[in-house]
Amino acid sequence: MGIEEMIVTPWEVVGKIDYKKLIEKFGTKPLSGKLLKKIEKHAGKLHMQLRRGVFFSHRDLDWLLDKYENGEKFALYTGRGPSGPVHLGHLIPWVFTKYLQDSFDAKLYFQMTDDEKYLITPKMTSKMALNHTYDNLLDLIALGFDPKKTLVISDMRCARTMYNIALNVAKHVTLSTAKAVFGFTDNSNIGIVFFPSIQAVPAFLPSILEGKNVPCLIPAAIDQDPYWRVTRDAAHKLGFYKPAQIHSKFMPGLGKGGKMSASIPETCIFTIDEPEIVEKKIKNAFTGGRATVKEQRRLGGNPNICSVHQYLYYMFEKDDDKIKELHNLCETGKMLCGECKQILLDKVQPFLKEHQKKREKAKDKVDEFLADNKINIKLPWKG
Amino acid sequence: MGIEEMIVTPWEVVGKIDYKKLIEKFGTKPLSGKLLKKIEKHAGKLHMQLRRGVFFSHRDLDWLLDKYENGEKFALYTGRGPSGPVHLGHLIPWVFTKYLQDSFDAKLYFQMTDDEKYLITPKMTSKMALNHTYDNLLDLIALGFDPKKTLVISDMRCARTMYNIALNVAKHVTLSTAKAVFGFTDNSNIGIVFFPSIQAVPAFLPSILEGKNVPCLIPAAIDQDPYWRVTRDAAHKLGFYKPAQIHSKFMPGLGKGGKMSASIPETCIFTIDEPEIVEKKIKNAFTGGRATVKEQRRLGGNPNICSVHQYLYYMFEKDDDKIKELHNLCETGKMLCGECKQILLDKVQPFLKEHQKKREKAKDKVDEFLADNKINIKLPWKG
Repeated sequence: MGIEEMIVTPWEVVGKIDYKKLIEKFGTKPLSGKLLKKIEKHAGKLHMQLRRGVFFSHRDLDWLLDKYENGEKFALYTGRGPSGPVHLGHLIPWVFTKYLQDSFDAKLYFQMTDDEKYLITPKMTSKMALNHTYDNLLDLIALGFDPKKTLVISDMRCARTMYNIALNVAKHVTLSTAKAVFGFTDNSNIGIVFFPSIQAVPAFLPSILEGKNVPCLIPAAIDQDPYWRVTRDAAHKLGFYKPAQIHSKFMPGLGKGGKMSASIPETCIFTIDEPEIVEKKIKNAFTGGRATVKEQRRLGGNPNICSVHQYLYYMFEKDDDKIKELHNLCETGKMLCGECKQILLDKVQPFLKEHQKKREKAKDKVDEFLADNKINIKLPWKG
Repeated sequence: MGIEEMIVTPWEVVGKIDYKKLIEKFGTKPLSGKLLKKIEKHAGKLHMQLRRGVFFSHRDLDWLLDKYENGEKFALYTGRGPSGPVHLGHLIPWVFTKYLQDSFDAKLYFQMTDDEKYLITPKMTSKMALNHTYDNLLDLIALGFDPKKTLVISDMRCARTMYNIALNVAKHVTLSTAKAVFGFTDNSNIGIVFFPSIQAVPAFLPSILEGKNVPCLIPAAIDQDPYWRVTRDAAHKLGFYKPAQIHSKFMPGLGKGGKMSASIPETCIFTIDEPEIVEKKIKNAFTGGRATVKEQRRLGGNPNICSVHQYLYYMFEKDDDKIKELHNLCETGKMLCGECKQILLDKVQPFLKEHQKKREKAKDKVDEFLADNKINIKLPWKG
């Protein structure tokens, strides 16, 4: 792979990603062995995504765990821009968030930024955005989150609470800061310019709803980091704890290089894909294989650039020994791409079959998860 | 009075106002005799503020009245930035709006922009802004608006509806337009940059709530005109009628020149002022009188620059013959400022006494006027 420019913003991930450079660029910290041990102590075991460095960077996680050890529970905040169906790449931080929820008995605030998607997508109507929120919520519920500890916030549906709290943030963010951090230009619409204030709200909601300062941890892909810089500044000004963060890498797509992207459907396996479609996508996936079987037997494949291997590594092969073995079998030419694809397929198909069942059942549970009235803040009123 | 620069923006009115020039500058139209006759035909009589040119300019009022004559009722939209107590200057367009409501059986949407005031006033908390909304609402109710035909919208309290509709507006307004029209700079906060979208909403609410395009008329001082230019553009893009407008002049303050301003309390009579305070303010008011009694008897006063005369003219002397007589008595030196001040005082005191009584009673009626749940728009939702 040649030298490619690396572009990482909340809207664009291009090129071969150097995660060490990203840590430097964003000014975050690598997840140290010491921190991992601390997590392991409380969680009982380290999640596969921690063992394998899928989550690899953080801000203030050390502070958050100290607080936890001193008896201050933290809340979790993550979210989704509901622009279309959910794909497997989206599930990675959600699965990890569930592990954190279960391990630390943490409440989760899950934001559906339907307002953002409506604002930045020319052809999207607000109805479409809300429909995506509903559909994506089914995927979230299907993963088994605890409804007693999970509030799903649709920005549009919860607009009364979101807008009122966002005003407090907005008052402290100048246009100049927003332009510098998010790259807004004179052509940006005034809705998306305001949006970072809305995006900040769930970091403060736990404190507002519980009436005391509550530490907050945001698990998200590292490209979302700029948003939280503004949120952290606002937190400081408004007297809230700054939210801590734990950053993941990007789930590779089935195509060559780059992030799995819903805008290139053949590079993504959507959770609602039919089995035949899934089979076709995996069979056509980009691998690290050689041009011919003969060559591959002789020289071996390259699992490090192989999207099939990455899928197994990031999500589907949970056994560390087995994933190492697969890596080795590939490099030594003992396993061909077809076999490896079949291994992945045999894991993805039953997962999706089960997920789709749970997704159907989730339709009855939507109301248990929706924040709506549960977070309807009381406004001060003389009368 | 020397030559002064004229500055008129939604936030600032400075200098001697040339209303003809404002009509040219803003590109509005003067209220023609033909239009006034049309209003008179339907209303039964012309309101004092129309007869005397307090309302003097318009946009599309001819179109609106044609629609009315063809059986399409219009809605009224006006509002208030609740930054503190209401003064007499604020009542002028409200009294006029009530005349329109009564004469044309029109629904009124009255917006309290507590969000705006919170965003642009450094020391104002959201609690203070909401308290002002409540207090100002009492003044509105005291004027006798029909609760069945009046919806008072607090942007903060109605944020769910307001934000969701504002998103539709915001998507069509670029930062560049907002900067050009409202003068936002890089130091503006991102909340106030978004605010024009919220300000536009009540112009579309009648159509949204009634499920059909409803003409809308905005009575407001002419300095608010820029806001509606953006609203009119958005209306066009969203398929709503453009709101028509009828513009008033500025209520003069008790000080020399300029607009009555709540930020200079001695130039305003607040509706909650005690009688002694009112007396003191009127006694100290700037007039068109001469340095000495003798001189005034000989040369006469100048009612055209006299704030006391303006108060009588704009609001308190409803008899056209009497106001002409007072003008004449002043110019010919037959009446001195002290007498004239007493005439005003004798009208203002009983008005305020009555108003303050009604204001107290209004506390029981607040819920009848508040939009809150009445305009809680239903969002499309698959589930």
